[in-house]
Order: sequence, then structure tokens, then C-alpha cells
Amino acid sequence: MLSKSYAKYIQSLHHKKFRDETGLFFAEGPKLVGDLLADKKFHCRSLLATADWQAHAVGWGGVAADEWIAVSAAELDKISALTTPNQVLAVFEQAAADGDFSPRGGLTLLLDGVQDPGNMGSILRTADWFGVCNVVCTPTCADAYAPKVVQGSMGSIARLNMVYTDALNWLAGHDGLPVYGAVLDGADVTTIGKIPEGILVAGSEGRGISAALLEQVSHKVTIPGKGGAESLNVAVAVGVILSHLC
Amino acid sequence: MLSKSYAKYIQSLHHKKFRDETGLFFAEGPKLVGDLLADKKFHCRSLLATADWQAHAVGWGGVAADEWIAVSAAELDKISALTTPNQVLAVFEQAAADGDFSPRGGLTLLLDGVQDPGNMGSILRTADWFGVCNVVCTPTCADAYAPKVVQGSMGSIARLNMVYTDALNWLAGHDGLPVYGAVLDGADVTTIGKIPEGILVAGSEGRGISAALLEQVSHKVTIPGKGGAESLNVAVAVGVILSHLC
Repeated sequence: MLSKSYAKYIQSLHHKKFRDETGLFFAEGPKLVGDLLADKKFHCRSLLATADWQAHAVGWGGVAADEWIAVSAAELDKISALTTPNQVLAVFEQAAADGDFSPRGGLTLLLDGVQDPGNMGSILRTADWFGVCNVVCTPTCADAYAPKVVQGSMGSIARLNMVYTDALNWLAGHDGLPVYGAVLDGADVTTIGKIPEGILVAGSEGRGISAALLEQVSHKVTIPGKGGAESLNVAVAVGVILSHLC
Repeated sequence: MLSKSYAKYIQSLHHKKFRDETGLFFAEGPKLVGDLLADKKFHCRSLLATADWQAHAVGWGGVAADEWIAVSAAELDKISALTTPNQVLAVFEQAAADGDFSPRGGLTLLLDGVQDPGNMGSILRTADWFGVCNVVCTPTCADAYAPKVVQGSMGSIARLNMVYTDALNWLAGHDGLPVYGAVLDGADVTTIGKIPEGILVAGSEGRGISAALLEQVSHKVTIPGKGGAESLNVAVAVGVILSHLC
């Protein structure tokens, strides 16, 4: 049974301010919640689950959560961020990012103001697919713990090191690495070949990479196109570029 | 001034049933509406615009629409499908698809149950970027004229020939072309090289390509990954595959 105050508490986690204050976030659905519980990166505070899911999870032989709260489908509907709530919502503790990681020996993704949570989630899933481990985000990017980002990343947030910081400062601290930037007037990305290490900068949906950051880009790259579209969706562009560089 | 009945009429266009009945759809925002008006593929029935946009559009020297309706920002808010309505909403007539196009001499995209309108819009924009002209969709795919698809395609729907039909029947009528299918256990798509003609099948978000359609795939292809993600977003996957095959 879900108390009114606890329902309100979960609803407040839809908002960044409250997620920041509490250091919590939530994930939904049997697949994603199961993956995050199995991964163990995030400590689970509460599992709010229907009888269906509870019956199913018992077979796992031990789910580590501080508390289980039985909820009805109607109660889940009230607290869910999904159009079609699905059996379980889990509240997790956010994990600290490693701001001191070395970008040497691999590719680091630098996101400059990617604001759409759907794009953000899709980019994280894509980075994880191509083996990118570290994602540096400007503070203007969508919050990695926003419900839509968590759901869209399909569990990849558990496997990525995500740092929100000033991009120019961060770049200044990692001099000497090639900095690739996704732009519309760069070199053909399909002809560059695999790169052993470097930074890939992708800009916001509306205005691309900011001027100050663009000055730090050593290799402008472009995805060759021949149709009528003026640009690609940023998540698609990141996927295409990573598939050619990684 | 927007009448109550006309506001209701526009709101009904949010739903596929009414779009099908009327043969209409709508697009929003100065950029997209401007592009669709300039492209002229879709005849414009009504322009519902704020004074700002009207003042701006006068400079174009002639916008072809059956009627202009001045609306306030608050009125636009009531009929808009956007979180942040933006100056103008235009009602267009849908255009007939060319079901008899020849898939010879190029790449045709075949979408099998892509249900998320955001993914659908992003795929159309991506197809357009890579010069794919024809998109065949199963009836289970998101409607190309749904507001989120129209907005996400960023004007690409005006440049694509989109056909909704039974995929198996359609394939049977175009025997002899290579049929590529995006799967998780196929050949490395980065080693195939450019293809002069063929069909690329992409499946639904949840279950991929349906079993019956998979039997018609002559070349299963996979995007090599090395991280922890189980799959890629379908729009990202289509972008990556097109960048290697086109």
C-alpha cells in the first residue's frame, strides 16, 4: 500500500531540483529495473512493485533493496513517468562520477548542451554499445538521472562514467589529445579510419557546438549526406561517427 | 481569432482516425512550416499564426495558404502538440504516396513496426540525409503524419515517398533485389561496402524484425559493438547502417 506522502515523494523525483537534493532517481519496468538491480552500481532504496512482478522476482533468489512496497497498477500509474506503467518502479541512489578519469587510450564523448532527454538517453546507450566509457557533459545538458534519460539509456547509465563540468576547463586539463567535433563543414568521417584515442564533441540540437568549444576542436568531421535534410539528429550523428572512429 | 469549433477541429488532428478521415495533418514552428510552405508538396489549408510570425512572413512576398487565422500565443497553446508552441501552426493536405515506385537503382528502407513517433521522425530525417527516397512501412508503424513524426522529421516527409502496405506482399512483388536486415547476429556491416541497390529492413523497438519478414532477408547485418548495451536505438542503427551501405 502506497501512502500519499510517499507517492508525493516519488513524484518529486521527476524534478531535477529534488533529485539533486536527495541524491536519488528512479527507473521503471521489469527489464530495466532487473538490469540495474543485477548490475549493483546503484544502491536500491525502494522497490514499488505489483504482485505480478513480486511473484516473478522471488525466483531470482534475493533482490537487494532497503524496502519493498506492494502497489496496485492504479497506484503505479500515479507515480510513473511512463505512458504505460509496467509492474515496477525502483528508487536508486545516484552514484558519484569519477571526475579524475584519464581520457588516454580510448575515446571520450563530450556533450555540449544536448537538451532533449530522449536524445541524451539514446546517446548514452549508443556510447555504451561502442565501448565508450566516459561521457563529459556541460551543465546545460539534460540530467543523466531524468526519468526519460534513464529509460532511454536502457541501463547504460550503470556502465558509464558521466561527469557534468565546464567543458573548456576540462579540455584545458587534457591537452594533447585530438579533439574531434561533429559539424556540417568538416572532413568526411568515413575516410578518417579508427582512432586509438581522442575526444568527440557533439553539440546541442538547435545550435551545434558552442563557438568557444569549437575553437578547441582540432579535427572537424562531417557525415557525408546527399539528400535534402539539413542535418541529422544528434543521437544518430553520434552513432554514425562512433561507428567509423571506434 | 480562433473559434472554439476550429480549435476543436485542430485538436482532433492529433488523432490518426481524424487525420485519415480528413486527409489533413499539421506542422508547427517557423522553421518547419516555412520549409513545408517553400517545398510546396503539401497544399496548405490554414495558417494559424501569431502577429510576430505574420509580420515576418509578409517579407516572403506571398505564402500560399487557403486562409490565415490570427491567433494569440494562448490560443496557439491550446491547439499545439508542442511543449513550447512557437508562433505558427499550419494545416496541410496529406499527399498521395507512390506505391508503384521502382526500388531498382537505389536503397529502399522497409520499416517493420517502428512504433515510437520520435524514432519514426528521426529515421525519416536520416533516410533523407543519406539520399534514400522511398520508405515502405508496415501498417503497424507510427503514422507518418502524427505530430511527433512530422516535427521529428524536420521537413523530410516532404521529400520522401512513404508507402504503408503489407511488407511480405510488397517484397514478393520486387523479387531479385538483395534484402538487408538489421539484426544482432549478422555480418559486420562495416565490411560490406557500398551497395548499388537493395532493401534495408529495420524492425520494431521491442522485438526487431518479425519472423515472417526475417525469412525474406538475404543479408543479415549487424553493427559491431564492444560495450555493455544489448542493442542500439532503431533510429541510430538505421543511421549507422545507411552510413556504411550508401
